[in-house]
Amino acid sequence: MLAISQYREAIIDYLHEKIQVKEPANLYEPMVYILEQGGKRLRPVLVLMATEIFDCDYRKSLDAALAIEIFHNFSLVHDDIMDDAPLRRGRETVHEKWDLNTGILSGDAMLINAYQLFENYEGKIFKELAQLFTKTAIQVCEGQQYDIDFETRENVSIEDYLLMIEYKTAVLVGASLQMGAIVAETSEDCKKEIYQYGRLLGIAFQLQDDYLDAFGDPETFGKQLGGDIIENKKTFLYLKTLESASKYEAMQLEHLYSINAGDNLEKIEAVKALFESSGAAELTRKEIQNYTEKAFKVLDKIDLPEVKKEPLRKFGEMLMDRQV
Amino acid sequence: MLAISQYREAIIDYLHEKIQVKEPANLYEPMVYILEQGGKRLRPVLVLMATEIFDCDYRKSLDAALAIEIFHNFSLVHDDIMDDAPLRRGRETVHEKWDLNTGILSGDAMLINAYQLFENYEGKIFKELAQLFTKTAIQVCEGQQYDIDFETRENVSIEDYLLMIEYKTAVLVGASLQMGAIVAETSEDCKKEIYQYGRLLGIAFQLQDDYLDAFGDPETFGKQLGGDIIENKKTFLYLKTLESASKYEAMQLEHLYSINAGDNLEKIEAVKALFESSGAAELTRKEIQNYTEKAFKVLDKIDLPEVKKEPLRKFGEMLMDRQV
Repeated sequence: MLAISQYREAIIDYLHEKIQVKEPANLYEPMVYILEQGGKRLRPVLVLMATEIFDCDYRKSLDAALAIEIFHNFSLVHDDIMDDAPLRRGRETVHEKWDLNTGILSGDAMLINAYQLFENYEGKIFKELAQLFTKTAIQVCEGQQYDIDFETRENVSIEDYLLMIEYKTAVLVGASLQMGAIVAETSEDCKKEIYQYGRLLGIAFQLQDDYLDAFGDPETFGKQLGGDIIENKKTFLYLKTLESASKYEAMQLEHLYSINAGDNLEKIEAVKALFESSGAAELTRKEIQNYTEKAFKVLDKIDLPEVKKEPLRKFGEMLMDRQV
Repeated sequence: MLAISQYREAIIDYLHEKIQVKEPANLYEPMVYILEQGGKRLRPVLVLMATEIFDCDYRKSLDAALAIEIFHNFSLVHDDIMDDAPLRRGRETVHEKWDLNTGILSGDAMLINAYQLFENYEGKIFKELAQLFTKTAIQVCEGQQYDIDFETRENVSIEDYLLMIEYKTAVLVGASLQMGAIVAETSEDCKKEIYQYGRLLGIAFQLQDDYLDAFGDPETFGKQLGGDIIENKKTFLYLKTLESASKYEAMQLEHLYSINAGDNLEKIEAVKALFESSGAAELTRKEIQNYTEKAFKVLDKIDLPEVKKEPLRKFGEMLMDRQV
């Protein structure tokens, strides 16, 4: 097994080799631009790790890993248009640097390009990969649609929210691991279990993302703290507060979320106080713990020697320990 | 063999059966909306026809035909955003009826949905279909990018233009026919030749589209005549005029294309006069004839009894005889 940083290097090298500007340049330059910007490359690293865990050379799954990374970046390009986001990873988003049409069209080409990379696998593996990819990609679209819907919907339940983050974020983590398992041609049980490990970890990861957005350490948190609160986002913390708080506290929260406060700091502090006093902050920490434990239990079950599972466990611990 | 109208009915029935609104409704309603709007269904009809020509039940290729129709409509949804078009087939475009984000996201879901339909084929046929689809879909994106580029590019050659319409329009016609051949598991030669028939016919079709936009019969032409001229589109007629006309005529044309004339009718008539006097109109008719003949020559070569090819020839003749 390689270290995470080595898998990351392998995927970046492969990306440089495979993704280059060709004609028409206006279609391919944005693709290279976003793919070379970096990011944590978590998903492709998981593809490569899973392949080796099941005793197969990680180089066999470089195409699948790159497909996942391209798909992830396709979704960022289109999501950034939908969110009207000017920046991504500290640099201009594609539709800002070029224009709307370039963002749409080069995103489309990236989605198709991802499929093309699977063609390097033979019939049975090709079909399994493409089928898992399609299922996952549709769920990601559905998750994004739910996310948009929730902005204007009144009655969002905790279950609705969990389904949304599962589709929008977690299934792609599960699919990344499963793709490694598919390339390694392991058993059907192993494929299913490793998918579940990724899915559960992905949910925990997203819940923690929500939590850190409010309660992260300002010293280490990369973005502005309280961004979700400023945007009145119906996160897990928000929904859990409505569920757990007294009627009076719930009204206060709804009031705070109905105004676009001039003094954001005051609003952020008031909302955070309600998250705490209602017990929702504590309940969110428990829920994160809960999903993380569920994930590790699934990992325990997988029919593999303990030493093989260790890197996956470490990866999960690293994800959940992060402050960013 | 069925009649064209019967194949069209078969594909519409199948579409009703397969494409229905589900949750999240905001993602799937636009899909149903655009797919139920009609259109000529030329591409899926070609898939079904090609399947039967190679002695296979057309019902086997309904999924491939529907995939092609969904892909075509995905490209219309995203193209309409890029062109800022308010109407399509006489009804509001998706991004007009809903909004930009809905247009982008439901388009994405349609593209993925098209891939999903190929999963109903077994390994080898699945891979062949998906691979042809991917190659074609990327070319369609590239063609759309060239089309956008040409709007602001000075030096567009006739070859550039022909490549653009080949990618944007013709390859999907070729791929439709080849998909029928793939489902019918015919020979590699037949697959290639029927693709070429569609590709050449597709180029002729698009050149005729350009021609009719200027010289169509106002009685039967569906849209406003001269639309391309009003938009200063660098069509085959325009490029051929620049190539064939005297220096003075070419300057006149470039001048007319540099102004956004208040009196459009006068501009249209002046441009059309130059198309005629330069000989470009006649040369365009010849080019259409040329591509049509090339297409029929490829059809002659295909190793099939004449009676089998007759419907494909009729279909081509019908396409080229149209006034709409």
